[in-house]
Amino acid sequence: MVDLYPSRIDNEPKIFDRKDPVVYSEGTDLAKGPLNREQVASYEKNGFLLLKNFFSTDEVTKMTGELNRLWDENRTVDSPEVIREPESDEIRSIFDAHRKNEEFNRLARDPRLTDTISQLLGSNVYVNQFRINFKPGFKGKEFYWHSDFETWHVEDGMPRMRAISCSILLTDNHSYNGPLMLIPGSHNYFVSCVGETPEDNYKSSLKKQELGVPDNESLTWLVEQGGISTATGPAGSLLLFECNTMHGSNGNITPLPRSNVFFVYNSVENALVEPFSGLKPRPDFIANRNPETPVLTG
Amino acid sequence: MVDLYPSRIDNEPKIFDRKDPVVYSEGTDLAKGPLNREQVASYEKNGFLLLKNFFSTDEVTKMTGELNRLWDENRTVDSPEVIREPESDEIRSIFDAHRKNEEFNRLARDPRLTDTISQLLGSNVYVNQFRINFKPGFKGKEFYWHSDFETWHVEDGMPRMRAISCSILLTDNHSYNGPLMLIPGSHNYFVSCVGETPEDNYKSSLKKQELGVPDNESLTWLVEQGGISTATGPAGSLLLFECNTMHGSNGNITPLPRSNVFFVYNSVENALVEPFSGLKPRPDFIANRNPETPVLTG
Repeated sequence: MVDLYPSRIDNEPKIFDRKDPVVYSEGTDLAKGPLNREQVASYEKNGFLLLKNFFSTDEVTKMTGELNRLWDENRTVDSPEVIREPESDEIRSIFDAHRKNEEFNRLARDPRLTDTISQLLGSNVYVNQFRINFKPGFKGKEFYWHSDFETWHVEDGMPRMRAISCSILLTDNHSYNGPLMLIPGSHNYFVSCVGETPEDNYKSSLKKQELGVPDNESLTWLVEQGGISTATGPAGSLLLFECNTMHGSNGNITPLPRSNVFFVYNSVENALVEPFSGLKPRPDFIANRNPETPVLTG
Repeated sequence: MVDLYPSRIDNEPKIFDRKDPVVYSEGTDLAKGPLNREQVASYEKNGFLLLKNFFSTDEVTKMTGELNRLWDENRTVDSPEVIREPESDEIRSIFDAHRKNEEFNRLARDPRLTDTISQLLGSNVYVNQFRINFKPGFKGKEFYWHSDFETWHVEDGMPRMRAISCSILLTDNHSYNGPLMLIPGSHNYFVSCVGETPEDNYKSSLKKQELGVPDNESLTWLVEQGGISTATGPAGSLLLFECNTMHGSNGNITPLPRSNVFFVYNSVENALVEPFSGLKPRPDFIANRNPETPVLTG
């Protein structure tokens, strides 16, 4: 397969234009919702859409309860799905939560979500990745700028830009407790990064990303074009962002933790192929290589 | 001298009530300005006051030019006044800039500043510390929560809470490029920290503070009382904050650097005594022990 988005090959960073649509459905399929015309236009232009108070307080309470339970259960568990902070033993993320937990499994199949994603991606979708993230108070570390697609393309073999990340805010996200920052419009450019991917890179990159890191000049250029937008909102808000939207977050020294549920829907027409790095694929709990099983909408 | 604010002595953190006024002048002295009644009341209640666009664009340009010049001159200088980032050789702060640079010397004597500080502190004032700070884009590190007074009291022998920090924003401070965060009302409480101060602590603490660090429980309590306020504003804004106001800042992964001029006026009636740690005082470039020379207003 031709590599439309080469990265980690050259010694010089490059910026390519996006070669894929942002919104895939058209006409009546697009018009039937759930998102209205303004919401679709905003997503298409900016590369993300924040839907405040998408989930009720009761739903948030239930999800938070499940998150805390998984947290406690995994506190001392040594499992590849449990990712810890680089400089401490604190849990940073737990992957594959939707296969371990009924509540999160149901959440991933919630038609309010899948119908929305299908409307934008113009096809059936499946869950490519599912994790819960916890950024503790006082010592939450930053997560540097990256395009999810860059990694998924190089390390997992996602061929095209036809996936959407969902982040459900489980705590209030203020401007000061390390909320997600996004660069509006950045999804229209592919920043080809320098360097070569080593074998089993994910074992360190999930703690702290050292590869697939965009260069300062490209980031400055993207911010000059689109500025920076901060996804602040109350617990229960849903952030959808296009797989190639450049995003990151600062650390969090406030006492207010920031936790969320994060999952990725990919189009069934965009199933993973061999990684474009030429290396062996990352494990299934990071990138689902069997879309057949968990097709969620029909 | 009795130690009204003991810290770094016990094994348990404690919170004491403030034993000093916040605003020292009264009656006609207070009423004559430059700050109006609302501004004084806001400062007294919150422990800080942000005056947007206090300096003109021309003045900011001049200060930025001087800052950049000092930066370039000191790039490879190995001097105690030049503090570097903990994990790189990047300059973090340059102390004593007002004694090295005519522009900053004039700034420290600017009556728009000294009259304001004298109004609040009810006496003549002198510059206790003067430095320029640079938080670079992409890799600016956080500065953890602290009360300036806690350090100045323990390590420099500042007897009472009768000093004010001034921060002049030289770049636009957005919510997302690591602006100063303050806890409103925190100046009314003294958080006594655990631990003992080692000899020459300042040599590492100016890069990364490990002592005089408030405990999580006290910080949580202060934030529950007062919330968190973020000092965002355009370049040229002036932030005044009371010496005991709890403050800190998150890191900055954005391309937008955050630099400022920071200086501290102390009341001539609050001159430094022997450090309450019992150790030898920090050098003069960090804490001016000779208020006679640079009395600025009369």
